Amino acid sequence: MAHINVPEGVPGIRSLVMFRPETGKPLYDLAQVLLRGESTLTPAERELIAAYVSKRNECMFCMSSHAAASRSLYKDERNMVDEVLHDMQHSSVSDKMKALLNIAGKVQILGNKVTQEDINEARKYDATDKEIHDTVLIAATFSMYNRYVDGLASWAPTDAAVYDEMGDRLAEKGYVTPK
Amino acid sequence: MAHINVPEGVPGIRSLVMFRPETGKPLYDLAQVLLRGESTLTPAERELIAAYVSKRNECMFCMSSHAAASRSLYKDERNMVDEVLHDMQHSSVSDKMKALLNIAGKVQILGNKVTQEDINEARKYDATDKEIHDTVLIAATFSMYNRYVDGLASWAPTDAAVYDEMGDRLAEKGYVTPK
Repeated sequence: MAHINVPEGVPGIRSLVMFRPETGKPLYDLAQVLLRGESTLTPAERELIAAYVSKRNECMFCMSSHAAASRSLYKDERNMVDEVLHDMQHSSVSDKMKALLNIAGKVQILGNKVTQEDINEARKYDATDKEIHDTVLIAATFSMYNRYVDGLASWAPTDAAVYDEMGDRLAEKGYVTPK
Repeated sequence: MAHINVPEGVPGIRSLVMFRPETGKPLYDLAQVLLRGESTLTPAERELIAAYVSKRNECMFCMSSHAAASRSLYKDERNMVDEVLHDMQHSSVSDKMKALLNIAGKVQILGNKVTQEDINEARKYDATDKEIHDTVLIAATFSMYNRYVDGLASWAPTDAAVYDEMGDRLAEKGYVTPK
């Protein structure tokens, strides 16, 4: 049971946003612009960064839902998501994405862990300022969502089919504030 | 120097928000509603939670600016801010605030570190659902801002007088997106 009195049967962050819509709106607006707004990183790639950080933060709800969204968006390459979550360095994801995921992993530990060498490695594969910015902000943002969802012990479904459906919905409709 | 090409001489998060205003808007909207919106926790108390979490995340810029904002808002009790940052458990802050700061400290580590006992302790001092919610979200949110500011190595002034002025401005005007 959640630590506070949120609507029953509503999973994860949705229940918290229904409890406090005033803070929910900027939280959803942020996810929408960051994961679906204009960017040279695809929504599939951005969802993968979100899932990777959520796994490292041990947030089962966020990891499962964003991995499902990433799989849905990657379509034929959907297996890559599980490869990255299992062992990023030996996965079939591009070298550029490996460099960006490495930066995201550093941010997940703490902001000051990102080194000039980490940035240089991403530049080697032509990562732009905006791509580096968005990678850092996605990793920072999920370090927030993960703590919010688990810090209040919100409900996380355990049925994989629920996440598949959620992933398809997030892939298609993006982040729409729940009513 | 920052890891990406942001406006020179603009400190911390402001330089990042000028680089990417699309994400800056929800980031500032979130800070404004969470730290200045309607709440039974005073803005001084909420800024103190922000400073406490930022110190634990080793983010000098956020710690200094939000400690300054909290001091400015606490007015005659301004010394309490430094007591809390030095040794929270032995500071002169209220027992209720100690219980909430303890929850914030757990969230700073990871969401799943918050225990039922931590929540019960806050309830003993009549902390409401909304106060517990906002404490967890402030701690989560600063675990994001801290990572964003340091992950991109944005510029942090070292002159204490700069932060005093910043604190007074944040106390008076709140969080207004930079132009």
